[in-house]
Amino acid sequence: MNEKIVVALTFASAVFALIFALILALKVMKFPEGTDLMKKISESIRKGANAYLKRQYRIVAVFFGVMFVLLGVMAIMNMITPFVPFAFLTGGVFSALSGFIGMKIATLSNARCANACRDELNRGLRVAFSAGSVMGFTVVGLGLLDISIWFFLLKFVFGLEAEAITGAMLTFGMGASSMALFARVGGGIFTKAADVGADLVGKVEAGIPEDDPRNPAVIADNVGDNVGDVAGMGADLYESYVGSIISACALGVAAFHGFSAMALPLLISALGVICSIIGTFFVKTKEGATQKQLLGALSRGTNFSAIVIAIASFPLVWFVLGKEYWPIYFAIFAGLIGGVLIGRATEYYTSDSYKPTKNLAATSETGTATIIIGGLSVGMLSTLLPIIIVSVCILVAYFVSGGASDASRGLYGIALAAVGMLSTLGITLATDAYGPIADNAGGIAQMAGLDEKVRERTDALDSLGNTTAATGKGFAIGSAALTALALMASYIDKVHTIEGGAEKIANLNITNPTVLIGLFIGACLPFVFAALTMNSVGRAAQSIVKEVRRQFKEIVGLMDGKADPDYAKCVDLCTKASLREMVLPTLVAVVVPIVVGMILGCSGVVGMLAGATVSGFLMAVYMSNSGGAWDNAKKYIEGGNHGGKGSDCHKAAVVGDTVGDPFKDTAGPSINILIKLLSMISIVFAALVVNFSIL
Amino acid sequence: MNEKIVVALTFASAVFALIFALILALKVMKFPEGTDLMKKISESIRKGANAYLKRQYRIVAVFFGVMFVLLGVMAIMNMITPFVPFAFLTGGVFSALSGFIGMKIATLSNARCANACRDELNRGLRVAFSAGSVMGFTVVGLGLLDISIWFFLLKFVFGLEAEAITGAMLTFGMGASSMALFARVGGGIFTKAADVGADLVGKVEAGIPEDDPRNPAVIADNVGDNVGDVAGMGADLYESYVGSIISACALGVAAFHGFSAMALPLLISALGVICSIIGTFFVKTKEGATQKQLLGALSRGTNFSAIVIAIASFPLVWFVLGKEYWPIYFAIFAGLIGGVLIGRATEYYTSDSYKPTKNLAATSETGTATIIIGGLSVGMLSTLLPIIIVSVCILVAYFVSGGASDASRGLYGIALAAVGMLSTLGITLATDAYGPIADNAGGIAQMAGLDEKVRERTDALDSLGNTTAATGKGFAIGSAALTALALMASYIDKVHTIEGGAEKIANLNITNPTVLIGLFIGACLPFVFAALTMNSVGRAAQSIVKEVRRQFKEIVGLMDGKADPDYAKCVDLCTKASLREMVLPTLVAVVVPIVVGMILGCSGVVGMLAGATVSGFLMAVYMSNSGGAWDNAKKYIEGGNHGGKGSDCHKAAVVGDTVGDPFKDTAGPSINILIKLLSMISIVFAALVVNFSIL
Repeated sequence: MNEKIVVALTFASAVFALIFALILALKVMKFPEGTDLMKKISESIRKGANAYLKRQYRIVAVFFGVMFVLLGVMAIMNMITPFVPFAFLTGGVFSALSGFIGMKIATLSNARCANACRDELNRGLRVAFSAGSVMGFTVVGLGLLDISIWFFLLKFVFGLEAEAITGAMLTFGMGASSMALFARVGGGIFTKAADVGADLVGKVEAGIPEDDPRNPAVIADNVGDNVGDVAGMGADLYESYVGSIISACALGVAAFHGFSAMALPLLISALGVICSIIGTFFVKTKEGATQKQLLGALSRGTNFSAIVIAIASFPLVWFVLGKEYWPIYFAIFAGLIGGVLIGRATEYYTSDSYKPTKNLAATSETGTATIIIGGLSVGMLSTLLPIIIVSVCILVAYFVSGGASDASRGLYGIALAAVGMLSTLGITLATDAYGPIADNAGGIAQMAGLDEKVRERTDALDSLGNTTAATGKGFAIGSAALTALALMASYIDKVHTIEGGAEKIANLNITNPTVLIGLFIGACLPFVFAALTMNSVGRAAQSIVKEVRRQFKEIVGLMDGKADPDYAKCVDLCTKASLREMVLPTLVAVVVPIVVGMILGCSGVVGMLAGATVSGFLMAVYMSNSGGAWDNAKKYIEGGNHGGKGSDCHKAAVVGDTVGDPFKDTAGPSINILIKLLSMISIVFAALVVNFSIL
Repeated sequence: MNEKIVVALTFASAVFALIFALILALKVMKFPEGTDLMKKISESIRKGANAYLKRQYRIVAVFFGVMFVLLGVMAIMNMITPFVPFAFLTGGVFSALSGFIGMKIATLSNARCANACRDELNRGLRVAFSAGSVMGFTVVGLGLLDISIWFFLLKFVFGLEAEAITGAMLTFGMGASSMALFARVGGGIFTKAADVGADLVGKVEAGIPEDDPRNPAVIADNVGDNVGDVAGMGADLYESYVGSIISACALGVAAFHGFSAMALPLLISALGVICSIIGTFFVKTKEGATQKQLLGALSRGTNFSAIVIAIASFPLVWFVLGKEYWPIYFAIFAGLIGGVLIGRATEYYTSDSYKPTKNLAATSETGTATIIIGGLSVGMLSTLLPIIIVSVCILVAYFVSGGASDASRGLYGIALAAVGMLSTLGITLATDAYGPIADNAGGIAQMAGLDEKVRERTDALDSLGNTTAATGKGFAIGSAALTALALMASYIDKVHTIEGGAEKIANLNITNPTVLIGLFIGACLPFVFAALTMNSVGRAAQSIVKEVRRQFKEIVGLMDGKADPDYAKCVDLCTKASLREMVLPTLVAVVVPIVVGMILGCSGVVGMLAGATVSGFLMAVYMSNSGGAWDNAKKYIEGGNHGGKGSDCHKAAVVGDTVGDPFKDTAGPSINILIKLLSMISIVFAALVVNFSIL
């Protein structure tokens, strides 16, 4: 296939996605914002979120500056190509942009969604889903834009070979991952510190409802939803999307030494964008739809996209790779199915329609301790199914791609499975991102004193969002594992191209002590990383708790609604705390692979990457699902079971939910990024390790 | 070195240890049991514990019977030697015996210890430590006895070659591990169900002190200490001790093809027994010793033993292996130091003398949720140091043993490090096992209404026990990881000796998809296993909670002390629940390696073993240390900090402690056994997998 056509098609689909996002954004903006009070509240949330992002970018800029100089020096020493530092920067900028745009539209549509819910549920869904789609298509659009522009430059302007092109592209993956990690960790700490702080003092101690305007941390809580669950997730999924595509490109070049294997992931992704756009038109409901019908509407959209891509990628493989390679199609197919199945497993373990969460809710009868123990074991147990699904996925993808006779083709197949899994990201992310918008809308409805019915409607949307978010998490976690394995293979390829590298990486036998020790250290990283981020949430939350308690005590008339709390102070505290706390975990992720490499050498790095991938996958699933199960067990009790709201069971469940918050929204999702960032750092600094390592 | 002399020395040291244990036991029995009430309470505990063990052994006997037949069939089919089924049985019997004797002496000395504490602290220490020593020396004595008798039979009666001898010996390791897993899981569920049940209703709901005789679960709680922390630990450490020695023997034979490399671990262990016996004589204090002096006394004993063995093993290596192999000494040395350092790290993270636990106690100020989050992160963070220590240990042991030029020698070195680590088990286990005895003594003191001072003294002993238990855990976890790696190497050796095996295990490259998938599945097992055991505790505890609540409600005059609760009913409930619950987790450990092998083949099994070892190590450290930190944070608050007993902080800390109970005493320690049992099952069923696996 002609290279220019491939680039043009990729570029076109990127532009198409971005234009579609723009049209949707304009459509959302036409909805009215509601009462003056609603406007004012939305304005405060927007301000807080903008202020946070501005300060976050300032800190991240320092990191990018330092890395740019470091990479520049390495480029001058000829250890990497001169494109690397620039590619690194663009990856970071585009990742940040994905988060920024997503958050912008989310903060502009929260009041609009609440206002739409005053009319009817369906209207609310349309606002929230459209806003979510803006984010979804911005992420995939920017991703393909970045890839196609760089490919064009490197290939047609600088005339590089395929190997050098994918090498430079992996660097913008590293930029994107670094930015994503900052965004996820910082945002995750912000949102959970505010949430935990608001809940602990407001709900538990003072006994006022969630999102009560008397709670000084309530605005911070809503800001947190935007900077964490929206901006953080945007940067995160930009990274996942781009990472899966470029690792497949890199392995394709290594396995087939030609352009076609590199074109395939690009074209699948381009096709996925189109399918996703069409899919969004299937998300429609009739007036007065039930919760089940709403979910059906969303599922129709994602299912349509998935089925079309499943069918259409078969001829694509046939034509692009040539007919003798048609079985590789099943790698993509395995990825698609795998993503859906992991999502289903997640739903089973975390939705209150199934036994695990119902049983978990029942453990609250015997107190807080038993619901905590129960939630932790649900999470641990829930690792089994995803592990089996991913294992089957790997096995299928490897062998259908011809791994039995040529290992590099098998690894390419694994990377393609990840691309397949994420091909419909445009629409799956839309169904994922609309949740926080509905959540915010609920907050605004409560604070603006709107009718009970409005809150009920936003709650219905929000609870739906929890289910679709479970599916989204399945895709994110599953693709992270597959991409990380693909990147590990890219690392090995990369080392082979460096002089003296082949020798250093000759023994990757699992009984080689450097591999084994790498395995131990790598597997330890997600534990340490999770601990650091949770500690950060704990510390930040404590400062919020103290501040909220102080305001309750010192501001006269606050509890009677006669005086306003100092919202800005809480937002400011969260901002400062989360920015301070996000630095260490991220630095750990950047520094450790270099240090391990310098001591244990390349085989140690491979062991480390394998260990981190395996244990990171487990920890991410464990933590996300424990958190999800606690959250929904609490909602289940609030729905009138085991004594309902205000009962002892409910109090126990609130504690569970609070513990689950940093589990599922800070540590869990960050680990997905961590395992890929480790590989990318290793790839970029491979030359350093080959030349200067001790062992 | 002459083979007969080695066997004779090993046998002699075994007999020596057992005689020493007998003398100590007689000494303990000379102490009076105290008042009639104390005798009666002790009697009830003893009865409950005996009844439990009897029923446990009956269930385990079924399992052993089935396995015996299965192995018998395999022996008839010539897949294993005819000694294997019998070796399997003796391993199980000796492991059970270790637990049984330990428990017998513990239940006979609890009242004696309480009574001795009526006189003075030092006397109490002497009773508890002597009883602990009985257990310590019984375990090592029985271990070396089993090994030396089998060696004698196989070598001199049946005239087998070294390879066949170690092969048969690995099977009694499997028997010991199976028994140990049953004992740890069953006992762990019993003790924690009783503990959680007693605490939740008694302490938290009814507000009566710990070990209050009005609490219907109080006897069950004390029985639990004996069947879990004593009998379970005895079986567990018997398995660790024997496992480390036989895996070193097996690897020694494979690496050196001679007898001397097999003699070395036996002689180090024999030497360790003697050093430990001498060490016990250093455990003495003056009248009115402070806590610090007490700890000093215990440390003197263990330190002395460690130093002597560190010195004496140098000439041992020199003479046994020959002077050109003297650097192998440093493998043993690394193991010794590594065990001590992991113990120190454990102490740092879990003792309230250091920052982590103090900070954890402070998080209770903001409620239950924050102390839970804090404890989980302490545990996760605490994995880092042990991982680094074990990594350095592996690296040193591997390279000093000549691994760089001959991998099999390097692996032998790793096994020797485990032997070194456990060589002083006699005395370290004594300092570990005396904790539960002091704990029981405290319970009896409380129930028998003895003077406040007695309880204070037993509490001092108990709290000391927590610190020494931390060290003990360091040895158990560290040696488990090293032994598991050694067993993995033995598995590879074993497969190579089977016809067609070498081919099946040729590609152990970490990028081989079967290895990778094995890694994923293996790493998942400790998560699933922990979840199953914690769920079991949860379920069992709930039944106790309901029973205790029922008794409080239905028995008139119970709270006023006018009526007695129905203790036996709670003991019976715990017994039934824990025996029912122990079966599934153990079956998982036995069945999974065979299933994985049948599907993924030998390379998949190796991946699985590596994954389970790495993630099992992390999970065991994480769970043990989280639990330890919560326990001591609670004690720290009870010591008058953050409001002391009865404050809100204390309530939050009690919940933390309750969550930590199954973490540190059920799931955590069981995982140590799990990772070794997986290897042993794989070794015994290797021929099956080589001949019939799909991949």
